[in-house]
Amino acid sequence: MLGCVPDLDPEEFRRLGHQLVDWVADYRAGVADLPVRSEVAPGWVRSQLPAELPEEPRPLGDLLAEVDRVVVPGTTHWQHPSFFGYFPANASLTSLLGDMLSTGLGVQGMLWSTSPACTEMEQVLLDGLAGALGLGPEFTFAGGGGGSIQDSASSGALAALLAALHRSSDGAWRQTGADGRERVYVTAETHSSLAKAVRVAGLGARALRIVDPSPGSLAMSPAALEAALAADVAAGLRPILVCPTVGTTGTGAIDPVRAAADVAREHGAWVHVDAAWAGVAALCPEFRDLLDGVELVDSFCTNAHKWLLTAFDASLLWVRDATALPAALSITPEYLRNAATDSGEVVDYRDWQVSLGRRFRALKLWTVVHSYGLSGLRAHVREHVALAAAFADRVREDPGFTLAVEPSLALVCLRVVTGGGDAADDAASRTVLERINASGAALLTHTVVDGRYVIRVAIGSIATAKEHVDALWARLVETAAQVRAEIAAADALRREEPS
Amino acid sequence: MLGCVPDLDPEEFRRLGHQLVDWVADYRAGVADLPVRSEVAPGWVRSQLPAELPEEPRPLGDLLAEVDRVVVPGTTHWQHPSFFGYFPANASLTSLLGDMLSTGLGVQGMLWSTSPACTEMEQVLLDGLAGALGLGPEFTFAGGGGGSIQDSASSGALAALLAALHRSSDGAWRQTGADGRERVYVTAETHSSLAKAVRVAGLGARALRIVDPSPGSLAMSPAALEAALAADVAAGLRPILVCPTVGTTGTGAIDPVRAAADVAREHGAWVHVDAAWAGVAALCPEFRDLLDGVELVDSFCTNAHKWLLTAFDASLLWVRDATALPAALSITPEYLRNAATDSGEVVDYRDWQVSLGRRFRALKLWTVVHSYGLSGLRAHVREHVALAAAFADRVREDPGFTLAVEPSLALVCLRVVTGGGDAADDAASRTVLERINASGAALLTHTVVDGRYVIRVAIGSIATAKEHVDALWARLVETAAQVRAEIAAADALRREEPS
Repeated sequence: MLGCVPDLDPEEFRRLGHQLVDWVADYRAGVADLPVRSEVAPGWVRSQLPAELPEEPRPLGDLLAEVDRVVVPGTTHWQHPSFFGYFPANASLTSLLGDMLSTGLGVQGMLWSTSPACTEMEQVLLDGLAGALGLGPEFTFAGGGGGSIQDSASSGALAALLAALHRSSDGAWRQTGADGRERVYVTAETHSSLAKAVRVAGLGARALRIVDPSPGSLAMSPAALEAALAADVAAGLRPILVCPTVGTTGTGAIDPVRAAADVAREHGAWVHVDAAWAGVAALCPEFRDLLDGVELVDSFCTNAHKWLLTAFDASLLWVRDATALPAALSITPEYLRNAATDSGEVVDYRDWQVSLGRRFRALKLWTVVHSYGLSGLRAHVREHVALAAAFADRVREDPGFTLAVEPSLALVCLRVVTGGGDAADDAASRTVLERINASGAALLTHTVVDGRYVIRVAIGSIATAKEHVDALWARLVETAAQVRAEIAAADALRREEPS
Repeated sequence: MLGCVPDLDPEEFRRLGHQLVDWVADYRAGVADLPVRSEVAPGWVRSQLPAELPEEPRPLGDLLAEVDRVVVPGTTHWQHPSFFGYFPANASLTSLLGDMLSTGLGVQGMLWSTSPACTEMEQVLLDGLAGALGLGPEFTFAGGGGGSIQDSASSGALAALLAALHRSSDGAWRQTGADGRERVYVTAETHSSLAKAVRVAGLGARALRIVDPSPGSLAMSPAALEAALAADVAAGLRPILVCPTVGTTGTGAIDPVRAAADVAREHGAWVHVDAAWAGVAALCPEFRDLLDGVELVDSFCTNAHKWLLTAFDASLLWVRDATALPAALSITPEYLRNAATDSGEVVDYRDWQVSLGRRFRALKLWTVVHSYGLSGLRAHVREHVALAAAFADRVREDPGFTLAVEPSLALVCLRVVTGGGDAADDAASRTVLERINASGAALLTHTVVDGRYVIRVAIGSIATAKEHVDALWARLVETAAQVRAEIAAADALRREEPS
């Protein structure tokens, strides 16, 4: 007992902490045998947990029993090797070690002075990763820019938009707010976090311009962007921000960063690249073309908590002007004033984000980067891209399926082919997806492209190996065959009916 | 090796995880012997970490050696028993156990369907805590309201403001954004996160009204609020939100919630109570008066990561209308559509916050609440309030010090008295604080009230016991005596100089 109240003393923590580590080790060792998707009904988890909070302490063993009995069946297992939904959210066990250090230290890194290591380890890491990703020296602190760890790409997009609003108004925005003439440029495939940022920033949905794709693609058309910007400027509106996406959520489409940046810069608009999922692929030289033109943009975001093996949350946001976010976001009440800040020699990361408080997130990312080495991180990306390519080949070769779009890195988008036309294919694709998810053998999510239902197969969970992708393919083939057989039987029945 | 790339297999994790637990246990066991404040210079941590990211994996032992050599001396130790700065940010070891479960599961709880347990455990906990805090049934899901875990009170304030903007415009805000006529009411002592929320939401600083305090206090004057609202309405402006604070950051001032709510409701303004630090004291019936009138407000925020022993980040936000945040914040792209959401039977917490992704934060709070029991949580609050009361008595009884304001719960604000007038007292107070911080024996932070420098002593770190508060008092007395002696010596020297 260290303080007034019985928190665990370090020796009790040692014992219980080992017990928790063992629980996690056992969970991960057995997760492949659980159904991926939780099959509980709404309200079941609530009904199983005590509604009243306990007056007296309960032993940890009781809590772990409740986790086994209620939480595990109530959980969709994101770390399951057959989780192919959304994008992977890799919480590597390596990153868990770093996260334990972070919570163990219990540091709050709002200011440099509230923990220099929390700030400077983040700076070192983000500078190093800027180099490893090929972002260029202008995104490092030495080059006048710099990076920060945000909780999510949503927050990164919002922070970029706020910096853009500040810059475009020469600072008037801080005093007078939005003026109703701001415009922000995305495509129909851009992540909804951009629309949300526009709403949060008080611009209203009218500020959001959906730029058309280039013909035959889902990627932003530079010509359409140019036309939209020119028309808006002519109408007295103010282009604030253009957001090219590298790897859209739906299909992995790649907007042309260089061309978009060329157009945007002509009109003084901020360019924010959302590469939440695909950005980390640029660690591999062979994928670096995805970011062609990134040296022209104002901010760039990619998530370490997706494909870079770091437990949520850890979204990486770089800006080419280290003063841009503090200029937009800083507010300094007396109690936060300190000599280090006044010296101008330090970064206070609170000024790079909306929230004041912040965790020592760098530790988990640092543990991952140093424990894997860049070679290990590249191998992770490469092997999943190779698995996706092989999977896409199977789709191409099987007349019962079709690729909805060409695969993008480790994302494969496909449809079931029934021979009965678009509507029948869409219905069959939906049924196949729902049956596989209901089986618990794998988890898939969907999107809609040009009105057509699309099954997404996002490969990249840390535990996913060839056997799991093979098993998914076998199940897709089998389930689609069942669905086609049911359609044929129903058709036969219909033909037999008297007309 | 589970997947393609060598993450730890569960057995390696077991071994290394135990090593990490031991590191944390050793760190906490020894933290009291470290200087509280890091004394490293800007740039030192950077200079000690390898600038280049490693190509090949490094063993965990090397990383831990680097943590010991660089991170520990580069850290200001928030979990130190003599940390009296800001407000406590208790990362109890108990909560660390829950956090390990959360990262171990690696769940992303943006939707109910992406992990029912992540959502429903949060609902159960927040409903239970609403009862335990005396918030009333209207803040529970059963009562039509509900709570959520945000990362910080900054985010809670922003979410409340966005809901208020939506409500006050009958939804037009979503389409057309801010109109420039919005006004938000705070006091000079309100946390800067409100000013930041106003800025982020695109209202501009002009939207922020600083309401005068009641005479002789630092708490919001209901009469001044009434006058400000009436004047703004008469001028065609729109009162959007009033924020009474229960326990301001500077001095722990308590705004009158009931009176502020009565005034605000007359004009249709949203009432958001910021009780980030002090709110959890309402677990104790004897402190529940602090929240008098809370049944009239629209939203209420308190931080589990301050005084409620739960590792950052875990800020609790309740609203009396469960539809308010989703109405303001929901945007549903195709890939997030699912049967559970469509059924209307579930809560999708992504619609209660700005970010899309979210961790399973409920697990750490649940572990704390169940491991301590409500009786343990109350004892933690009570014992630190009692320590603060005894400390304040010493300040009152010593003519060398004065209370800057009456103590508020576990926060004591004081000044050094020199006999040389206000300016001398302020300078001495600053010197005393700086010397104590530089000694590493304790950490204090300051504020300025009515132009006067104030030393804040925030008691409440989990490891803080009577001996640490006694040691702080002894050091304050000793350091202030030194400073007074230096002033006297300088005065004597001056008197000896020829005029």
